[in-house]
Amino acid sequence: KSLEDVLKEKGVITEDDYKNIQKSSPIKYKLGDGFTFTSADGKFSTSIGGVYQLRYTLMDLDDVNNTAAKRAQDYSKFELKRIKLHFNGYAYSPDLTYKMQLNFANIAGGTTNNGGLLEFAWLNYRLRDEIQFRFGQDKVQFGRQWITSSDAQQFVDTSAVTSAFVPGYDTGVMIHGKIAGGLVNYNIGGYGGVGQNTYRTTTDNSFAARLAVNPLGDVKYSESDVEYSVNPLVSFGANFFRDTIYNGETNNLFFAKSTSWYGLGSTLMTKKFSAGEPLDFNTAGADAVFKWRGFSATGEYFFAEADGQTSKNRLRADGFYAQAGYFVIPKTVELAYRYSYIDPNRDVTNDHWVENTGAVSWYINKQNLKIQADYTNIHKQAAIASTSGKNATDDQQVRFQVQMQF
Amino acid sequence: KSLEDVLKEKGVITEDDYKNIQKSSPIKYKLGDGFTFTSADGKFSTSIGGVYQLRYTLMDLDDVNNTAAKRAQDYSKFELKRIKLHFNGYAYSPDLTYKMQLNFANIAGGTTNNGGLLEFAWLNYRLRDEIQFRFGQDKVQFGRQWITSSDAQQFVDTSAVTSAFVPGYDTGVMIHGKIAGGLVNYNIGGYGGVGQNTYRTTTDNSFAARLAVNPLGDVKYSESDVEYSVNPLVSFGANFFRDTIYNGETNNLFFAKSTSWYGLGSTLMTKKFSAGEPLDFNTAGADAVFKWRGFSATGEYFFAEADGQTSKNRLRADGFYAQAGYFVIPKTVELAYRYSYIDPNRDVTNDHWVENTGAVSWYINKQNLKIQADYTNIHKQAAIASTSGKNATDDQQVRFQVQMQF
Amino acid sequence: KSLEDVLKEKGVITEDDYKNIQKSSPIKYKLGDGFTFTSADGKFSTSIGGVYQLRYTLMDLDDVNNTAAKRAQDYSKFELKRIKLHFNGYAYSPDLTYKMQLNFANIAGGTTNNGGLLEFAWLNYRLRDEIQFRFGQDKVQFGRQWITSSDAQQFVDTSAVTSAFVPGYDTGVMIHGKIAGGLVNYNIGGYGGVGQNTYRTTTDNSFAARLAVNPLGDVKYSESDVEYSVNPLVSFGANFFRDTIYNGETNNLFFAKSTSWYGLGSTLMTKKFSAGEPLDFNTAGADAVFKWRGFSATGEYFFAEADGQTSKNRLRADGFYAQAGYFVIPKTVELAYRYSYIDPNRDVTNDHWVENTGAVSWYINKQNLKIQADYTNIHKQAAIASTSGKNATDDQQVRFQVQMQF
Repeated sequence: KSLEDVLKEKGVITEDDYKNIQKSSPIKYKLGDGFTFTSADGKFSTSIGGVYQLRYTLMDLDDVNNTAAKRAQDYSKFELKRIKLHFNGYAYSPDLTYKMQLNFANIAGGTTNNGGLLEFAWLNYRLRDEIQFRFGQDKVQFGRQWITSSDAQQFVDTSAVTSAFVPGYDTGVMIHGKIAGGLVNYNIGGYGGVGQNTYRTTTDNSFAARLAVNPLGDVKYSESDVEYSVNPLVSFGANFFRDTIYNGETNNLFFAKSTSWYGLGSTLMTKKFSAGEPLDFNTAGADAVFKWRGFSATGEYFFAEADGQTSKNRLRADGFYAQAGYFVIPKTVELAYRYSYIDPNRDVTNDHWVENTGAVSWYINKQNLKIQADYTNIHKQAAIASTSGKNATDDQQVRFQVQMQF
Repeated sequence: KSLEDVLKEKGVITEDDYKNIQKSSPIKYKLGDGFTFTSADGKFSTSIGGVYQLRYTLMDLDDVNNTAAKRAQDYSKFELKRIKLHFNGYAYSPDLTYKMQLNFANIAGGTTNNGGLLEFAWLNYRLRDEIQFRFGQDKVQFGRQWITSSDAQQFVDTSAVTSAFVPGYDTGVMIHGKIAGGLVNYNIGGYGGVGQNTYRTTTDNSFAARLAVNPLGDVKYSESDVEYSVNPLVSFGANFFRDTIYNGETNNLFFAKSTSWYGLGSTLMTKKFSAGEPLDFNTAGADAVFKWRGFSATGEYFFAEADGQTSKNRLRADGFYAQAGYFVIPKTVELAYRYSYIDPNRDVTNDHWVENTGAVSWYINKQNLKIQADYTNIHKQAAIASTSGKNATDDQQVRFQVQMQF
Repeated sequence: KSLEDVLKEKGVITEDDYKNIQKSSPIKYKLGDGFTFTSADGKFSTSIGGVYQLRYTLMDLDDVNNTAAKRAQDYSKFELKRIKLHFNGYAYSPDLTYKMQLNFANIAGGTTNNGGLLEFAWLNYRLRDEIQFRFGQDKVQFGRQWITSSDAQQFVDTSAVTSAFVPGYDTGVMIHGKIAGGLVNYNIGGYGGVGQNTYRTTTDNSFAARLAVNPLGDVKYSESDVEYSVNPLVSFGANFFRDTIYNGETNNLFFAKSTSWYGLGSTLMTKKFSAGEPLDFNTAGADAVFKWRGFSATGEYFFAEADGQTSKNRLRADGFYAQAGYFVIPKTVELAYRYSYIDPNRDVTNDHWVENTGAVSWYINKQNLKIQADYTNIHKQAAIASTSGKNATDDQQVRFQVQMQF
């Protein structure tokens, strides 16, 4: 029993006093935020919390291109997928907010992976809801599923399409706002252009813009209808991203990894880009969401193009995913299915990457504590098959994941 | 004076109320845990704390194999040996506990050392004391001294034998429990098989099992009898570990380092393992502890074997340590002595590694705040001598360490 | 409203009680420290806070040595310059203080930069104000501007001179104290000798000593007179540092970087040091500060010498900066100017590095929340010009920075 409880019982303070006091408590636990400390004058607040994603993956690679002597190496992997801590809050005024997030799973195997420890490190000033300024490292606001936290996914992880087309994190400035209580949200930003925790000394910065329309009310960036929306919700979004990268330049951009559209597609070009030449990247995407009474559906399409400034050669790619889920036990157990498709080079054939995924999720405490399992058939056509040879491959992947926010 | 103090003085609340309130305080300092925050509903708790191990080492290497012109390089080293932060607690229920521990001293010299920042990153679910499940990164439960925290050692650090034979940290799953209030403790676990913050894409996982029997009551994994046990305590343990590693594979396993049994022993083999061949490792150990009235004694024996799957070659090693300490000033000043012995390859001669260590420790606040110094004679026979030549070497090492938990 | 507020209103507690209770609060926000937790017995305290330095830099390199085809690469860079978290406090007694500070911006581009994550990691025992002992990693107490926190600078960053002559962080021991309430401060320390988070196995440790005299009262290590000192403040300091480094040895010493006095100067030597030869470094510096009614002036001079133990060759360098600022709007808006000069090798000509910097700073909440912009003309004579050629270069640098402590 707390002091407030005792004094309320004794009649020293009233029920109203009690409620006021609870509200002004300097320390509170908030789901998703963790422990929140607030200064007596209300001008400063810090929340300290974290999230664990502990994963087991079983991968059965297709042996169709192999001989009896040369087998593909299957694997069985226990993994600290994401181990994050965050320090969020506001300082000097509730209008000046900040978010610092560290992912310690990004140091593994003796080196820094996935761009390093720092994910978010931004400062946001709210002039009014409609006009806000952000400075620092943030998710580049391109791709609905990417903007959605890895903690709030319908499957064990984002789709292969999202990983293949989004830029990832970067440092820069952004103007953004919510208009009419979230019916329209916009973001316009300029960034360094080489991704998370990476810098370069050129003047080639990148640019991103996004517009989302939510005609029936604001729709959070969170997959699944774990809240059981009594009224239907829809959201439509469109985004654009442009950047200039030197061919072969070291960067932490997601779309430039060897398994992404540019990584895969550029190796298949008949007339390749020159070494070190500047490439102009233009990427566009559109997305839609529907949620109602435990049912949710999301779809997203991406188109991307890279143009060599000197060689004048061109690479074009596209891809999309569509996913739907339904809570067979409302707010608790969900079944979901996803189809995803990537064509990393539209000018060559036999290079499609198609994934079919089925998932079952047990939301013990909404997105805060959940256990998920999914099964994926990974189909890669011969030009990009997982084992080299003349045949397409179908790899079978089973993942199991426990997620806990504290 | 706190509000509770004032209200108790004024007679507004009773002594009993006061005690209840103290118990329900949302913020408390706990020795060893640090500041502990608890939510009003009692479902969430986080402790934030850390530990410093600041060390000075003076090493005088034996010059017996050297000429006047070629001297061994002695050293004088100030070191941040361990600088740790932890975020421990429970979430959603006191039965769902977690532990996250970071060691920032593991980034030094511009690179990641000793496996990286994350040490513990696990989630534990207690079905009942006897049946508990753990998922994530933990110490592989093999070797009493290794399971014992580096904060609770009788000497400045663990023995050379422990470093040479234990697997270290790894990610996996474990079933464990305490039976009959700790008279019997057991652990059975499966792990990735390549150690701390490291993953590989094979199906060769590792396995560990341990059984500890404490006939006179549960014995904590903490060296020295700083608590001054009025009644005698004894503990007997046995553990087993198996793994498959590819010869030359990159990993963070302690026993695969160049200075450990496998690292030293394999270079001395007459018929060596083939490059890249899979090796089956089987390791077993047994240990015993006795504590009474400020006196404590611990001993542990290890046996290890590596078998080449294709070459059929075999490496066998063993080693042990025995240590004892006594508080000349009860609960405050302890003198301790340790003998340790490693034979990294039982099939060759002249490869023994023997250490004799004497320590004096001042426990200012038990294991939480202490100052320790130890002196070690490191005797290495000619085949593994610290300076190459035909003679065994005797190096002299003096260490001084301040340890503080906050 | 807090419980104390309610009880004071109801007359249950007095105004005096109220004040006492506020003082004993287990959780408080302190500017610069962050949220501070204190145990009920007053023996333990931890402050958790952090600082953001978010920077934009525009660099226009001089093209004087270039042809039309070969242009210097200007740059436009958004940067997480410093993203720090600290865990400070005391434990077991207010006399045993500690400071742990992490800079997460030091992991970027996939590697560890600027010496790594850990900046401060020390333990300080205060026997009395005049005699204190410190063990761990700290700023080597050499160079006033270096000792001054990067959060408390008058310009966007420290001068090129400071970066070129100071040793940086290192691990070691220090005796220090404040005499007569801060009229005289002294530090004497011994360190590992190779800088931040780096160790070596030799017996060549380094040594530093500093004396500061503040005849009109203690002067904090903080630039600018943002406090608007009604009475004039002056400070005079002198420091000395010596070290032995092997030519080409890997280290994290600031003065050994390629852009510092030793890095620049040694490449210009006519009789060079031998590879790997031990070099004796001796560095001395003197500094002075004056502050009054919003005006502040600081100057610092360094002299450095490296002597080859075997080659007997010698390198000598010196440098200084002088800066002054005035608050055109008291406590809020300051204009400042700095001149800095480095001669990395006094025995050759045409190697001077001169910077002229003008800054404007808006102190929204003193040094805790401020926005700064500065412009620098970087003049490098031909021997060290930023683009190789026969002419000196003048590069133009504009920086903009937001700093927030939370």
